[in-house]
Amino acid sequence: MRDGAQAEGISFTVNDKLKILKKLDEFGVDFIEAGNPGSNPKDLEFFSRARKLRLRHAKLTAFGSTRRAGIKVEEDINIQALLKVGTEAVAIFGKAWDFHVTDIIKTTLEENLNMIRETVSFLKSLGKEVIFDAEHFFDGFKSNPGYAVQSLKAAAQAGADWLVLCDTNGGTFPLDISSIVSEVVRQFDIPIGIHCHNDGGMAAANSLVAVQSGAVQVQGTINGYGERCGNADLCTIIPNLQLKLKLSCIPEEQMQNISAVSRYVSELANLAPNERAPYVGHCAFAHKGGMHIDAIQKNPMSFEHIPPHLVGNERRILMSEVSGRSTILKRIQQVAPWVCKNSPETQYLIDELKKLEYEGYQFEGAETSFELLVRRALGKDIRFFHVKDFRVLCEEHWQDDYSASAIIKVEVDGKEEVSAAEGDGPVNALDKALRKALQVFYPELNQMRLTDYKVRVLDTGKATAAKVRVHIESTDGETVWGTVGVSTNIIEASWTALVDSIEYFLYKHHQKTAEQQNQESEPMQPVKANENTQ
Amino acid sequence: MRDGAQAEGISFTVNDKLKILKKLDEFGVDFIEAGNPGSNPKDLEFFSRARKLRLRHAKLTAFGSTRRAGIKVEEDINIQALLKVGTEAVAIFGKAWDFHVTDIIKTTLEENLNMIRETVSFLKSLGKEVIFDAEHFFDGFKSNPGYAVQSLKAAAQAGADWLVLCDTNGGTFPLDISSIVSEVVRQFDIPIGIHCHNDGGMAAANSLVAVQSGAVQVQGTINGYGERCGNADLCTIIPNLQLKLKLSCIPEEQMQNISAVSRYVSELANLAPNERAPYVGHCAFAHKGGMHIDAIQKNPMSFEHIPPHLVGNERRILMSEVSGRSTILKRIQQVAPWVCKNSPETQYLIDELKKLEYEGYQFEGAETSFELLVRRALGKDIRFFHVKDFRVLCEEHWQDDYSASAIIKVEVDGKEEVSAAEGDGPVNALDKALRKALQVFYPELNQMRLTDYKVRVLDTGKATAAKVRVHIESTDGETVWGTVGVSTNIIEASWTALVDSIEYFLYKHHQKTAEQQNQESEPMQPVKANENTQ
Repeated sequence: MRDGAQAEGISFTVNDKLKILKKLDEFGVDFIEAGNPGSNPKDLEFFSRARKLRLRHAKLTAFGSTRRAGIKVEEDINIQALLKVGTEAVAIFGKAWDFHVTDIIKTTLEENLNMIRETVSFLKSLGKEVIFDAEHFFDGFKSNPGYAVQSLKAAAQAGADWLVLCDTNGGTFPLDISSIVSEVVRQFDIPIGIHCHNDGGMAAANSLVAVQSGAVQVQGTINGYGERCGNADLCTIIPNLQLKLKLSCIPEEQMQNISAVSRYVSELANLAPNERAPYVGHCAFAHKGGMHIDAIQKNPMSFEHIPPHLVGNERRILMSEVSGRSTILKRIQQVAPWVCKNSPETQYLIDELKKLEYEGYQFEGAETSFELLVRRALGKDIRFFHVKDFRVLCEEHWQDDYSASAIIKVEVDGKEEVSAAEGDGPVNALDKALRKALQVFYPELNQMRLTDYKVRVLDTGKATAAKVRVHIESTDGETVWGTVGVSTNIIEASWTALVDSIEYFLYKHHQKTAEQQNQESEPMQPVKANENTQ
Repeated sequence: MRDGAQAEGISFTVNDKLKILKKLDEFGVDFIEAGNPGSNPKDLEFFSRARKLRLRHAKLTAFGSTRRAGIKVEEDINIQALLKVGTEAVAIFGKAWDFHVTDIIKTTLEENLNMIRETVSFLKSLGKEVIFDAEHFFDGFKSNPGYAVQSLKAAAQAGADWLVLCDTNGGTFPLDISSIVSEVVRQFDIPIGIHCHNDGGMAAANSLVAVQSGAVQVQGTINGYGERCGNADLCTIIPNLQLKLKLSCIPEEQMQNISAVSRYVSELANLAPNERAPYVGHCAFAHKGGMHIDAIQKNPMSFEHIPPHLVGNERRILMSEVSGRSTILKRIQQVAPWVCKNSPETQYLIDELKKLEYEGYQFEGAETSFELLVRRALGKDIRFFHVKDFRVLCEEHWQDDYSASAIIKVEVDGKEEVSAAEGDGPVNALDKALRKALQVFYPELNQMRLTDYKVRVLDTGKATAAKVRVHIESTDGETVWGTVGVSTNIIEASWTALVDSIEYFLYKHHQKTAEQQNQESEPMQPVKANENTQ
């Protein structure tokens, strides 16, 4: 949590950090390095609240530096801050690269070794579990291997419980990691750890290779968040180690939660998830090439390195000009199983789909809009309401507040309802006015809420006149569905997605109610919405 | 371009592909595998237009499969399509994993070897340069090494110019790659290539290790785009090989263009760039931790694995609660060099900054808004215009078109101007009305245009009532600047960013004009906008 929060764009509140702490503890992580009390006062509040939580498994760990040069360890205010938070384990970083000693902290090589020795010794004398992070160890080893190893020895002799080799600048390559880690493992009896950064794109590979070379602790972050190009991504490393090399990292039953943990942290970090992330990304098991899709249908092992459910992810079959007619048909059949290759609707739907994709629609992640499209094309659509018209007004007066309001007229079963609402913005005003009008007819709408709203500008060259694609995610508390709208007018695009989302909720709700009523007398209806593609 | 286009969310037009072809050729790539004429008819048009381009360096390569089982190679329609596009080089994939032969294409192991042999032979007899891609080579080698090697031998005996080992499912680890590639290199005289996918997060590392083990061709894609988790990312691999291992991949002078190439392709792919990408990402050299920033200022080598300018990227110093007062001061001093640690403005600015960040502002990427904030706080702001009020109206009538219009009143030097405009959406209408009013006073505004418009929802749980951050990028044709606005009302947030952007343009334009007039008599003014942080 400390190194991860150093990523650009991340700024966790104390509450965010407490939530992540609980989540990682449940997930079965062994150590959670949660902050640097010496450098960041916000972390003091975090630790005092974290101490009150009862962790089931993880050891909460505070992070700090060796004492500063030329002062006594017990007088160093950062060390005092570190102790104040009262964690059982502490991670202490010290310099292992001679260049950093002489040119950055500007002290002697000998004093740096004293700093390491005395700091570790002092913390051990207070009963802490001490993890020694040898900063820039690999760069140091390449420049002056003797000194790099001496820094480890200083920590080891002072009683450190772990020696962690850091590729702080992230520029080391796997084969070098392998030989250097093997060499260190040979020389020390203390367990060795690895801490990699991703500046050369090697963080996950380097961590893995280090384990194969004898390291037994991997430091990393969820989603690889971290300064610059990030830290080693635990969501990649844990499945690699546990599913493939059969090395236990987390309880076996937790592995299927790793995709959810990844999304949870990206949500709290307020960063768009990396859809292409190994194992946990939305695309990780998405197949698009026609030949691949054919093969996957014969045997998923043909183009998947693991079964997606092991990591709580799912297989997805995508549509595009690369994917054949059979893929599109398969997608259609998920909604309408009776449609076959030569049905008259098939060609119409394929043409319609191509037209919409040309306009900028994308149904990946908005499967609900696709389903509604198919249902409409097949005449299977039940319209729950018609919007007669709407009007949205946004105003600002000189040094006064902004305002946004909407007026809307809907018709349900021949009855009209007019309503108006003010909102936090034009789309919110419209959303509120629409719900207000519809709840007169459909009170169950209060079970549904929007959980995400994304806007993507499609032709950036046109700036504010550009076409935008709005993607809305909604939930009824049980399932989540996505809808999409495209227009040059952000209100129209939002509106399309909003109306689809509500239509779908009403359709599903009414279907469910009908099923419940018929349960004893009739079988389930064949059309089921939004199922997994497999 | 073929494998990259199989990424979810990518759908290149023929024009996009022609643009990328030209860009990659300039960049100095050796082979450009641009499509599969047999499976994708759109690729036929591409090749017929691509042939008319004169490439400076790259060999345009068409991609296809070995002949189908049980037919003559010259009668295979996919092979015919492949030949029709008339490229000098062809890449042919064939099965190297026994399981794929028996369970997916359902033929005999012997017939598969015939298919490889006859297809390569036939293409060689027509004078093609043939790259044989051994699909699933590593999975095949692990399951049945003898057969995997036989598939290579079939291609080699038939005259293939290259044997490329593919980790098609992306699940292989670096040390296995190293030993298997070394083994193959020992057995064959033909040059060996490597083709990796990223399902285990190892694609870049595996490609690198393969080269260290004797491979001399790397297949990959710009930004690692590709099916599922993507292909090996050339933007990571090329700098790793060329800058660190000193192996030549592209002309030396092209290396500084790699960040631009990465952005160009992501722009055409219409995918948000991966900001954390090694070497080319916007964050790749962004420093946030206080201690790191201190060290970087002493010597960049302390926390950077290479100097960013080598890859056309730049160092950035970020602000956050992790970064110290000195970082914020440094940022302020870029705008106002005379401000020092104890200036009364400093504390005010730090407080103001914290307040805005709390509200959701983020000045990373919107340095111009930060600069205007500083100038305003220092009373150095010249307001070029005041907006008295505006009103935006969006309407939709039953089955009629949507409309958006805006009315605006501005004041410049005591003179008022009212104007109105219709637009493609509310923000566009407002943008047009504002420019129309302002151009009465500042005709130079026609030199400025908006190039990007991004919207990020900050508290997704609140859906349409959520706070949004709008980020606008503008250009005057010479430089690009970013501004930001935050509000629950998307119109207000857009408006804030829009007004900042125009203010900044006018400020810069007037400063430039003043400088030109004073050039002979006076020195340059000290305040310069938007400079590199170093």
